[in-house]
Amino acid sequence: MTTDDTDAVIVEEPVDLGARIAELLETGDETKALELARSIHPADLAASISTLEQTAVRDLIRREFSSNELGKLLDFLDPHYRDLMLDGVAPDRLAEIVSVVEDDIATDAVQDLTGPEAAKVVSILPDELRESIHRLVDYPPDTAAGRMTGRLKLVSDGATVGETIALLRAEPEDQRVSIIYAITPDAQLAGLVTFRALLTARPNQLISEIAEEVVSVEAGMDQEEAARVLKQYNLTALPVLDPEGRVIGTLTADDLLQVLESEATEDMFLLAGVDEEENLESVRQSVRYRLPWLYANLLTVLLAAWVVSMFDDTLARVAILAAFLPVVAAQGGNAGLQTVTVVVRSIALGRIAARNIMPIVRHELATGVITGLASALAVGIIAWVWLDNAVLGGLVAVAVTGDVLIGVAAGVLIPMLLHTMKQDPALSASIWLTTVTDVFGFFIYLGLATLLIEWL
Amino acid sequence: MTTDDTDAVIVEEPVDLGARIAELLETGDETKALELARSIHPADLAASISTLEQTAVRDLIRREFSSNELGKLLDFLDPHYRDLMLDGVAPDRLAEIVSVVEDDIATDAVQDLTGPEAAKVVSILPDELRESIHRLVDYPPDTAAGRMTGRLKLVSDGATVGETIALLRAEPEDQRVSIIYAITPDAQLAGLVTFRALLTARPNQLISEIAEEVVSVEAGMDQEEAARVLKQYNLTALPVLDPEGRVIGTLTADDLLQVLESEATEDMFLLAGVDEEENLESVRQSVRYRLPWLYANLLTVLLAAWVVSMFDDTLARVAILAAFLPVVAAQGGNAGLQTVTVVVRSIALGRIAARNIMPIVRHELATGVITGLASALAVGIIAWVWLDNAVLGGLVAVAVTGDVLIGVAAGVLIPMLLHTMKQDPALSASIWLTTVTDVFGFFIYLGLATLLIEWL
Repeated sequence: MTTDDTDAVIVEEPVDLGARIAELLETGDETKALELARSIHPADLAASISTLEQTAVRDLIRREFSSNELGKLLDFLDPHYRDLMLDGVAPDRLAEIVSVVEDDIATDAVQDLTGPEAAKVVSILPDELRESIHRLVDYPPDTAAGRMTGRLKLVSDGATVGETIALLRAEPEDQRVSIIYAITPDAQLAGLVTFRALLTARPNQLISEIAEEVVSVEAGMDQEEAARVLKQYNLTALPVLDPEGRVIGTLTADDLLQVLESEATEDMFLLAGVDEEENLESVRQSVRYRLPWLYANLLTVLLAAWVVSMFDDTLARVAILAAFLPVVAAQGGNAGLQTVTVVVRSIALGRIAARNIMPIVRHELATGVITGLASALAVGIIAWVWLDNAVLGGLVAVAVTGDVLIGVAAGVLIPMLLHTMKQDPALSASIWLTTVTDVFGFFIYLGLATLLIEWL
Repeated sequence: MTTDDTDAVIVEEPVDLGARIAELLETGDETKALELARSIHPADLAASISTLEQTAVRDLIRREFSSNELGKLLDFLDPHYRDLMLDGVAPDRLAEIVSVVEDDIATDAVQDLTGPEAAKVVSILPDELRESIHRLVDYPPDTAAGRMTGRLKLVSDGATVGETIALLRAEPEDQRVSIIYAITPDAQLAGLVTFRALLTARPNQLISEIAEEVVSVEAGMDQEEAARVLKQYNLTALPVLDPEGRVIGTLTADDLLQVLESEATEDMFLLAGVDEEENLESVRQSVRYRLPWLYANLLTVLLAAWVVSMFDDTLARVAILAAFLPVVAAQGGNAGLQTVTVVVRSIALGRIAARNIMPIVRHELATGVITGLASALAVGIIAWVWLDNAVLGGLVAVAVTGDVLIGVAAGVLIPMLLHTMKQDPALSASIWLTTVTDVFGFFIYLGLATLLIEWL
């Protein structure tokens, strides 16, 4: 490769190439559209077609790209769009595509197939890839082993540096790997061998002398936990061992990225009662994921309705009381939502442990007292001035303070309780929270109003 | 290093070492606590002390660890806890610590200092590090250049492979770098030189022959955008160029991780009206970050209160109407929150673009019609049976359907509008949303009730 080729790609402003391809396609110029799609870096193409609206461009590429071109593109696509591109592709073509992608992507693709189709695709694959896939398929997809790649090289720790380099030089171009582990004569992991160390060592040194200490995980470890290990130790690769201590694969930094991104998505979605899989593409899917939580919300908010109904005599006598129902509920609910969000994310980032929640409860109650009183003062004065009724102002102020305090306390306890019950701490926390703040807020507010009705 | 040392670290169950150190400390056994802290891998120690409650252990380590030990620990700590550990350390010691960490961490630490203290620390540093920091400090911290590390090696593309290897072998142990770029005679980036390529090339080959094509970014690019480039191209390092096209540093995968994690945190926090910096450690800070949003929420919910107050005659005649106010508001609000969350996250992941929102609006309206009618049917029947009033049941059902539709439409439009206004799409979207759903929901519900009051 010459200099002129290599310094060409300086990424500046992102140009929306996907939109330009789509435009060409809309004007009926498929040839030009394809030409453009082929001329850009597969990573850019992958980014350009990863939006909801690029269905037509994706269809064109899926139909017209060679298996080799498609394989290169798949290496850069998000798993979601990767699945979309492979959905319904004929077994022959799928086998061709799968043969040119990384083995962990190939395994995912094969795992998504069912029954006779999977068998057919696997039967067409090259022997080496078939073995690699078989090894990966044995493990559940959410474990370290289910996520790993088999693309690595094992060398004996008794070999010399010179022998190892000769081995690497002899490798065909397309079978080159970037990770080398040293193993002992009884096949146990002995360390990581970096290319850097091979390069600077003397040819007659033993691999055991240059192998670096390495952190490893067991095959069955949960993938999220394994990703956290990768992050904790600032690693770019993490060997995965079978129960006998043999290296069977390696996790890489892009696995970590995917796990962290989907974890964040999951937390956000669960907080609002949405499924992580939801992608705005199928109305049927959206309804199926969201309706159960809306029904759950309905059931819980009926509790609040029942509390209000208990006070209908009071409301009939002083109808304006109803105007401040949403105010009390919203202040308590929002203060609680702030707490829930901070607590959920702190649990996810490992900053707080379920063991010792008292410091957080104290922090939130102290924060709640101050923000509650500050809100109450403002809303109390507004209510007083607006309706010219000091008692009503005081009543609203007390109810807001109380509900903010209940909100922040529930905001700590709900995610912590879910966490202790081995549930995701975000699991529809917002629905449980608003139930608590609505029910208690209305009870305090209307209860006090009933007691003080003579002065209202 | 021998085999026996290297295969020792298999990560299995996470043991809470931080808690054990804290226990030892509580029983007054500082010596044992320190001994344990020193005996574990710095990555494990970093993870163990990164919780709210480990303040005492952090203080002990900060006081008793040597500058070298502390430097090793800092490499594995989250930026948040890194800042805590360095806060208030004397200049002499800080200079010692900063000399043993990566240069980007050193730069961050120096940037956090102000005035004479910064000058003092910098003046004690070794020349090479001082230069490196000066280079990094020139750029705003939120740009590619502000995040990069200067730890890389540049080799002329006219040099031979043999010369380059000799150069690498001559490097002292502690100045080894893991990234090498080839540059042209006029100092332009010519490509990436991997150790792998050096190892398998012939000694008399030119660097220009083995340099690989490389993607680069300009120094001033926003750090989040640069991180996205790193991700898009599946890279582990990304060279940063000055306006003249010279390599001045490189971004690494851990920068990417940090950017993605803090982006996710920011979105979650903004949705709920919490500041990204919030960390449950200072009540004063929590109040300062949260109270403004609670006040904003108060102002907006007073609009809803005003809508309810307009119908106080109706409420005085049929007080039970008030019981369904929270039901209408909650169904509309929650349906909208589901939409907001999916839309915000889809924008962050690049799945939807601001240019073309109609398909998403259509998707959400279709979903809203179905979930709205399904919710309305349930709540209508419940209201009818509970209060034995079919008209009230129908009224509630119509209001819920209407409010769910308004919620999902607002759920698309609010984040899209914020995005178009160059704001974060999550910026307190939940507060704007509940205002819309409360105001319209109450208006539909109580407005219809006023029209139908004869039959209630």
